[in-house]
Amino acid sequence: MVATTSSICYIDGDQGVLAYRGIDIHELADNSSFEETCYLLWFGRLPKRNELTELRDRLAEARKLDAAIISLLRSAPKQALPMDVLRTAVSALGFYDPDEKNNDHEANVRKSIRLTSQIAMIVAAYDRIRKGKPIVEPDPSLSHAANFLLMLNGVKPSSTAERALDIALILHADHELNASTFAARVTAATVFQILQTIHTSKADPVEYVKGMLAQKKKIPGFGHRVYHTEDPRATHLRKMSRDLGQSSGQANWFEMSHRIEEFIKTEKKLNANVDFYSASTYHTMGIDVDLFTPVFAVSRISGWAAHVIEQLDDNRLIRPRADYIGPGYPQRYVAVEKR
Amino acid sequence: MVATTSSICYIDGDQGVLAYRGIDIHELADNSSFEETCYLLWFGRLPKRNELTELRDRLAEARKLDAAIISLLRSAPKQALPMDVLRTAVSALGFYDPDEKNNDHEANVRKSIRLTSQIAMIVAAYDRIRKGKPIVEPDPSLSHAANFLLMLNGVKPSSTAERALDIALILHADHELNASTFAARVTAATVFQILQTIHTSKADPVEYVKGMLAQKKKIPGFGHRVYHTEDPRATHLRKMSRDLGQSSGQANWFEMSHRIEEFIKTEKKLNANVDFYSASTYHTMGIDVDLFTPVFAVSRISGWAAHVIEQLDDNRLIRPRADYIGPGYPQRYVAVEKR
Repeated sequence: MVATTSSICYIDGDQGVLAYRGIDIHELADNSSFEETCYLLWFGRLPKRNELTELRDRLAEARKLDAAIISLLRSAPKQALPMDVLRTAVSALGFYDPDEKNNDHEANVRKSIRLTSQIAMIVAAYDRIRKGKPIVEPDPSLSHAANFLLMLNGVKPSSTAERALDIALILHADHELNASTFAARVTAATVFQILQTIHTSKADPVEYVKGMLAQKKKIPGFGHRVYHTEDPRATHLRKMSRDLGQSSGQANWFEMSHRIEEFIKTEKKLNANVDFYSASTYHTMGIDVDLFTPVFAVSRISGWAAHVIEQLDDNRLIRPRADYIGPGYPQRYVAVEKR
Repeated sequence: MVATTSSICYIDGDQGVLAYRGIDIHELADNSSFEETCYLLWFGRLPKRNELTELRDRLAEARKLDAAIISLLRSAPKQALPMDVLRTAVSALGFYDPDEKNNDHEANVRKSIRLTSQIAMIVAAYDRIRKGKPIVEPDPSLSHAANFLLMLNGVKPSSTAERALDIALILHADHELNASTFAARVTAATVFQILQTIHTSKADPVEYVKGMLAQKKKIPGFGHRVYHTEDPRATHLRKMSRDLGQSSGQANWFEMSHRIEEFIKTEKKLNANVDFYSASTYHTMGIDVDLFTPVFAVSRISGWAAHVIEQLDDNRLIRPRADYIGPGYPQRYVAVEKR
């Protein structure tokens, strides 16, 4: 079911290919940065040196939150879900956006830059607030990934953690018209809860998963609706999970994930998808399980922005239809006494 | 382009048919109420007397706004757009929703009821706040339409105005998968601005519109992408515009609209669409032009809720694809020095 045309994201599920503007995600994960990927998504090509520097500066410059947004974050009740708070705060950003009423190309780029910078700040600031910790000031000298981890954890990240998040942000930046993105993040959270249960109960990971299969339970984090090969993003997340585990002295999360992956691959012929190794990777970075969806938004705002820019440049109207399968027309209106 | 199946809304653009659950919109406009239409959309059939009474009671019972939501409305800056405020307040409702984490059928119905009642209250309350007027307490003895007009204008509406809004809410309650809904409301607002210019400048409506055509300007409020006949909703809005104009002593808005309609129909062979007579109807009801979109949401929340209930009952995954028309795969990643 094709909803529209787009020049942003190319997916070949049979070959396991994901590409932004035609460039393979593996080349981007190996060579690019999140800021450069934003440029690629928004402007349609890789930036020259000065263009990349300018975009980095503009993103760093946009690391400002209106005091009213901070107040709104502080006023959220303590039990509020981080994703509800993020959604509300992003909605309120519109009150203060100087381009609120502008929809031209340049205004859309300015809004993309502000949203990309500020969504990351909102996620980090709210996590500090709900934990009773002071909000950390942004550091304009840092990359987007490093600044986010600084504002979240209160300390500058290791270069391994910075690079791991940078790659995670690149990998999640776009995936065409995926309506199930939030459902997917729930999967990563479910994967982590299983890992935590195994860790706490000191169970053997393979035995634990065998037990789940015996109870006809689905193992979350395996298989993909579009990819019939390994999800190309999983390749990088596996490596990051391993590297981060080693460098932070928390190798156990990767190790138990890897044993589960090997078992399911043999037993069920299913590949780990993008969510499976996200769980151990994010946990090792100090990201709480209920921040997995907000952190996804920290990355995907770049892709959402690219699609909005593309859509408004063309102003094509997407008008999908539903195939009506309800009561045949015409049903008659029957007076209430006669029903 | 068919995105999904649905049992809610039937449209035949060639015959000019719009039907909810198979029942023609004309029969509903003539006989039903907004509350009954909500029942029809959410439960798939017309309610028996006791079922309708129960839903009315539940909707009236849900006319409560958390004090924190009122604070949020008061904290919005004075220049904020009403639609931005509504979107933010609805997002914040999630913080206080007892069913925030529930997605079963009954929870979805409870959320539909709360959202339907509270969206109307938010629109009315914010309009009072921004005008420096006191918020009006809801009256549980009134219909949804009458209570909204009471909370907006501070006085109980005439029976003509109550019925006109009730019908407008029925007409806008659903229209299948229309992604252009907000664009459409901008049209109604643009129509009203033209009417107001004609009124203020004492111009002849037909001469004014002729002038627009001479300047190659499009006349907003005519033609429809789906309907090749008259938009079936326009039939009722025309009548309401006339009736309300007569009963309120403001017949001029209908009269100038009608002259423009006749001229465009003859000259351009174009029918007035749902937006054209919405402009004069809403204005005569005391609804400001920048509330047209929020008032649309007051109605359409019932259809959005019906689609969410249907979707989550089935839990079918809608996964539209985009047809990729960007740079051919694979483009190579080129180091920044070589670009």
